[in-house]
Amino acid sequence: MIIDTYTHLAPRSFLSRMNNMSAALGNITARLLSVKDLYDLDVRFRAMDAVEDYRQIISLPNPSLEECADPKEGRELAHIANAEMAELCSKHPSRFAGFVAAVCLTDVDAALQEVDAAIGALGAVGVQIYTHIDGVPLDHPSFEPFFARMSHHDRPIWLHPTRTAAMSDYKSEAKSRFEMWWCFGWPYDTSVAMARLVFSGVFDRYPNLDIITHHLGGMIPYFDGRVGPGLDVLGSRTRDEDYSGVLSSLKRPHLDYFRMFYADTAMFGSASALDCGLRFFGSEHVVFATDAPLGPIRTTIDAILGADIDDGTRAAILHGNARRLCRLP
Amino acid sequence: MIIDTYTHLAPRSFLSRMNNMSAALGNITARLLSVKDLYDLDVRFRAMDAVEDYRQIISLPNPSLEECADPKEGRELAHIANAEMAELCSKHPSRFAGFVAAVCLTDVDAALQEVDAAIGALGAVGVQIYTHIDGVPLDHPSFEPFFARMSHHDRPIWLHPTRTAAMSDYKSEAKSRFEMWWCFGWPYDTSVAMARLVFSGVFDRYPNLDIITHHLGGMIPYFDGRVGPGLDVLGSRTRDEDYSGVLSSLKRPHLDYFRMFYADTAMFGSASALDCGLRFFGSEHVVFATDAPLGPIRTTIDAILGADIDDGTRAAILHGNARRLCRLP
Repeated sequence: MIIDTYTHLAPRSFLSRMNNMSAALGNITARLLSVKDLYDLDVRFRAMDAVEDYRQIISLPNPSLEECADPKEGRELAHIANAEMAELCSKHPSRFAGFVAAVCLTDVDAALQEVDAAIGALGAVGVQIYTHIDGVPLDHPSFEPFFARMSHHDRPIWLHPTRTAAMSDYKSEAKSRFEMWWCFGWPYDTSVAMARLVFSGVFDRYPNLDIITHHLGGMIPYFDGRVGPGLDVLGSRTRDEDYSGVLSSLKRPHLDYFRMFYADTAMFGSASALDCGLRFFGSEHVVFATDAPLGPIRTTIDAILGADIDDGTRAAILHGNARRLCRLP
Repeated sequence: MIIDTYTHLAPRSFLSRMNNMSAALGNITARLLSVKDLYDLDVRFRAMDAVEDYRQIISLPNPSLEECADPKEGRELAHIANAEMAELCSKHPSRFAGFVAAVCLTDVDAALQEVDAAIGALGAVGVQIYTHIDGVPLDHPSFEPFFARMSHHDRPIWLHPTRTAAMSDYKSEAKSRFEMWWCFGWPYDTSVAMARLVFSGVFDRYPNLDIITHHLGGMIPYFDGRVGPGLDVLGSRTRDEDYSGVLSSLKRPHLDYFRMFYADTAMFGSASALDCGLRFFGSEHVVFATDAPLGPIRTTIDAILGADIDDGTRAAILHGNARRLCRLP
């Protein structure tokens, strides 16, 4: 059994509503429509047919609702998307193991209502958020109620990097070009978001919080030396802000918290990255994911099958951890 | 025998000249003076005494001359630094295996003269440059003569990320704080610089170019899937610029070129990162380095000694590759 924990799908009603909202959203719709597997189920199912006993957990693709729509539009789009994703899951249980709810966190109160409804009535397995909310970092106090609510529901958060802000942030001539914002900017954003959550103490306040990070935890596993001992002297490189109390405000050594995240295997089949990520997060915190249809299914599976791990670890990655996290049968 | 390929040293005459140039440079001098091992040989040698048969290759610490000084000042500072580093190497051959020349590439003609003089008369083992030159990317045509000259000399380039630009680029509230510009921003910058050099065809034009990248090749080894297959569709994510001819302009598959870089082991002793980096670059393209005095010597050595590699690979990393690259006895 294989559960693909992180795949993207754009429901048709969502696309059609978005297309009619504004010219800017029409452009985004056009971009999404250029990837057929995102919305055409026949195309999608044919790709899925190549793998036996394989089911997907679906979530909206980029960009984040916060960046492409105003709060009112974003709320409506999330609501439409969640309703249709729930319907797709109930219609195609052999294809979709569950859906991750969309929210628009520029209106936190409305987002909390959507969280409750999606997890409650619609049966979402969790909620997807982005590495920052239209430029505002996740450790901003305004998002605290969201983490509190997710901790209350005891359901995982899917953490995804987001296109727009990465592009504007890396737009300098020296740093962008050649899709570097995608290739390296996204894992960078993921890493920064993880660090900000850790240093703001979110895991001390909500120890049961489960956060699934895309692309095998961003840069954390490869740079565990910089993150761990390198940041033991946090503050020594900074003159304009005082970080001296940050580490001591945490209950445990800061590197411990980074291991509390979950990490998915959407790495285009890299075998050495899988080893490195697995050594960092451990066999219970790595979940199989391909990023389909934006990442390859077959080569990502082959990386897991070819890895030098025991059968228990392989099963945990391919389905066990996802089933536990998402409370699937 | 251990050769530490990437360590930093700020010569006293360099510090004293810089301190007197301007108030801004005085501030930078003060920052450098706060790390004693950067300039105090007694302190430095005591740290080095903890390891047997251990020699360092020295280079200037951050920030880059291009970012902290005007072209005239930068040229003078490079000249002063190179002269004193050469003197230190000849005075302390059992401590210093060689020095990496400083240049100021905001005046390329002057920099080429300094390259010739440093490699010629002073015996520099190579030249250090930064991942961008005060905001201008390394693949800008103005730097082509520099790569041509290094290829002509057949001497390696040390590639270092640089403080100032990284800070300004990551200054947004969502992305900076907690020294993220250092922790993740530097490897990001290194990765982007590597990609730009590859995609601009520098290795096709100068196949003998040896470039030593800091921190085990930045993000490339862990994200070899994104860099390789992920960028096979380069251009598909971009609307405002046409990248369709980039990959076909190269003589070989683009991922091949990334393996032509050298990568140092300055990863704060991370064992899993060493494995991952070594699998990507291969045993002949990884060189031992600690980033001393800014990185730990002992734990970095222990990572090499504890790695599951054969004695030949271990010797190549600890000294063989550096001796070949730097033409050391």
